[in-house]
Amino acid sequence: MSTVHAYAANKANGDLEPFEYKLGPIGPEQVDIAVESCGICHSDLSMLENAWGMTQFPFVPGHEVIGKISKIGDHVSHFSVGDRVGLGWHAGYCMTCDQCLGGHHNLCSGAEPTIVGRHGGFADTVRAHNASVAKLPDALNARIAGPLLCGGITVFNPLVQFGISPTDHVGVIGIGGLGHLALKFAQAWGCHVTAFTTERAKAQEALNLGAHETINSREPDAIKGVTNRFDLLLSTVNVKLDWNNYISLLKPRGRLHMLGAVTDPLDLNLIPMMFGQLSVSSSPVGSPATIRKMLEFAARHDVAPVTEHYPMDKVNDAMEHLRSGKAKYRIVLDR
Amino acid sequence: MSTVHAYAANKANGDLEPFEYKLGPIGPEQVDIAVESCGICHSDLSMLENAWGMTQFPFVPGHEVIGKISKIGDHVSHFSVGDRVGLGWHAGYCMTCDQCLGGHHNLCSGAEPTIVGRHGGFADTVRAHNASVAKLPDALNARIAGPLLCGGITVFNPLVQFGISPTDHVGVIGIGGLGHLALKFAQAWGCHVTAFTTERAKAQEALNLGAHETINSREPDAIKGVTNRFDLLLSTVNVKLDWNNYISLLKPRGRLHMLGAVTDPLDLNLIPMMFGQLSVSSSPVGSPATIRKMLEFAARHDVAPVTEHYPMDKVNDAMEHLRSGKAKYRIVLDR
Repeated sequence: MSTVHAYAANKANGDLEPFEYKLGPIGPEQVDIAVESCGICHSDLSMLENAWGMTQFPFVPGHEVIGKISKIGDHVSHFSVGDRVGLGWHAGYCMTCDQCLGGHHNLCSGAEPTIVGRHGGFADTVRAHNASVAKLPDALNARIAGPLLCGGITVFNPLVQFGISPTDHVGVIGIGGLGHLALKFAQAWGCHVTAFTTERAKAQEALNLGAHETINSREPDAIKGVTNRFDLLLSTVNVKLDWNNYISLLKPRGRLHMLGAVTDPLDLNLIPMMFGQLSVSSSPVGSPATIRKMLEFAARHDVAPVTEHYPMDKVNDAMEHLRSGKAKYRIVLDR
Repeated sequence: MSTVHAYAANKANGDLEPFEYKLGPIGPEQVDIAVESCGICHSDLSMLENAWGMTQFPFVPGHEVIGKISKIGDHVSHFSVGDRVGLGWHAGYCMTCDQCLGGHHNLCSGAEPTIVGRHGGFADTVRAHNASVAKLPDALNARIAGPLLCGGITVFNPLVQFGISPTDHVGVIGIGGLGHLALKFAQAWGCHVTAFTTERAKAQEALNLGAHETINSREPDAIKGVTNRFDLLLSTVNVKLDWNNYISLLKPRGRLHMLGAVTDPLDLNLIPMMFGQLSVSSSPVGSPATIRKMLEFAARHDVAPVTEHYPMDKVNDAMEHLRSGKAKYRIVLDR
């Protein structure tokens, strides 16, 4: 029984304080990861606030883990102690349902989120099923790779799932933790990339991040200038926007894909969707196979999050910075 | 200048009365069709009512035409006079936009609907661009084939567009002019087919039409029994239903596809769509290439509309029968 040194909150919105727990014997298909760094995702904050009513306290956040394999179960053959790996939103899958057997483990109804009912990566060690852990390519900068494991795969996954072509025009709505990675991935994918933002100051930043052009979505003339332009619009915001307005910017057979967790109903007008054979859709993170593809692609194309770093023992300062909305664009805790 | 003998209304909701008009010289890419029969689609009625504000009077309805080529333009080489053909919602396309050149003519913004700003198939002759006209396979029963050209292609098209597999589970919402053809095509496609209807009397009819089972969508227990079941739900109704309830019946990566023209906003809850990577979409009719595929498939699998027949000179009786909502399932006017 080894002891894990972690940071946990004891109540909703409580400070994260040093917390120890014991790991039982490792399962035959499990691995332990010695955490080197862990990104902070907005859902860590939502879980800390118990915004979704499913947080169990003491609560250890953290699901954008980079580290080295420190122990492997008896049946684990494709990892060795010392391998550098990443772990994201899921720490295990049922492995036998239609989704798991079909390669869509992220859609498994029995998938085990890393920070729901178990302890996450704000710690020196985290345990996971081997299938949920991905080996990092040597060429990837491990220090800043953590946010790829949740934020990155969330925006990369639709490019794979919907067969986006390098000849496509992609628009990204919202330039933050998810959006800045969407710009980078879509640009590396070879697409024409447009950033939608309401903040003038972010326009130049978006160009630096890989956008070919930016549109201020509060300027009706700018919006009208790009009707019938996009094969894919990726929305990364979690507030209600005029979705029908964005739908009018899609080419025939285009898709508005929602990655931000908007709780207001979508209020879509069907007739324009009918005339254009348009789709509206959403998706969560990605499968293990797609995570591997993403990591290889990110390494080859030098796609990396823009990060700010805090030592893990300053985790409460880091959470406060995230709450402020000023993080650019993703915070990483270093051990 | 040949004279066309047609039936036209002179005002919204007016009776259809004998009406003559002259056809000018035939264009090099046009064909004339000697009409043998013409199906009646609900959109003929909507146009007669000027429900969409785009009807020009005198108005000649009719866009599910079966007939024989009676004249061809100088550049038409793939039709001969006497060929038996069908004509649907579109009578022409721009032929040069990205959609036309890409094989998606039905999404061409310059496509010319057969009954918008021109005269349709309730007539002895109708003219169209050759690309919008499809040769009928010899094995197809021409007498009842008309409704395939609009109703049929509308429900067949999504099976092609979204790569529906014979291993998929398909649900059809609403068993009428579109729905009965959706049941037949999905069954012939090899899928497991479920019919959703609120009318008990239609349950047995749906089984006869090709459904493997029927669900009374007013029975909550029946609905709950099929959650996580469907790869594709085709809605053929034009009234607001509880779409979120239907979305809960989709498998991961499933699709709710809307074929009925619902004017109320869709009010979709995003979070279930996110967890399941679900899509909501719509589409209009189909391209010339897909119409050809449909006709060949219908001939091979003996997929045919269930029709009621009126002589064309009883067109007002036929329209009244359509208005009554009692047509089973599609009315054809015979000349």
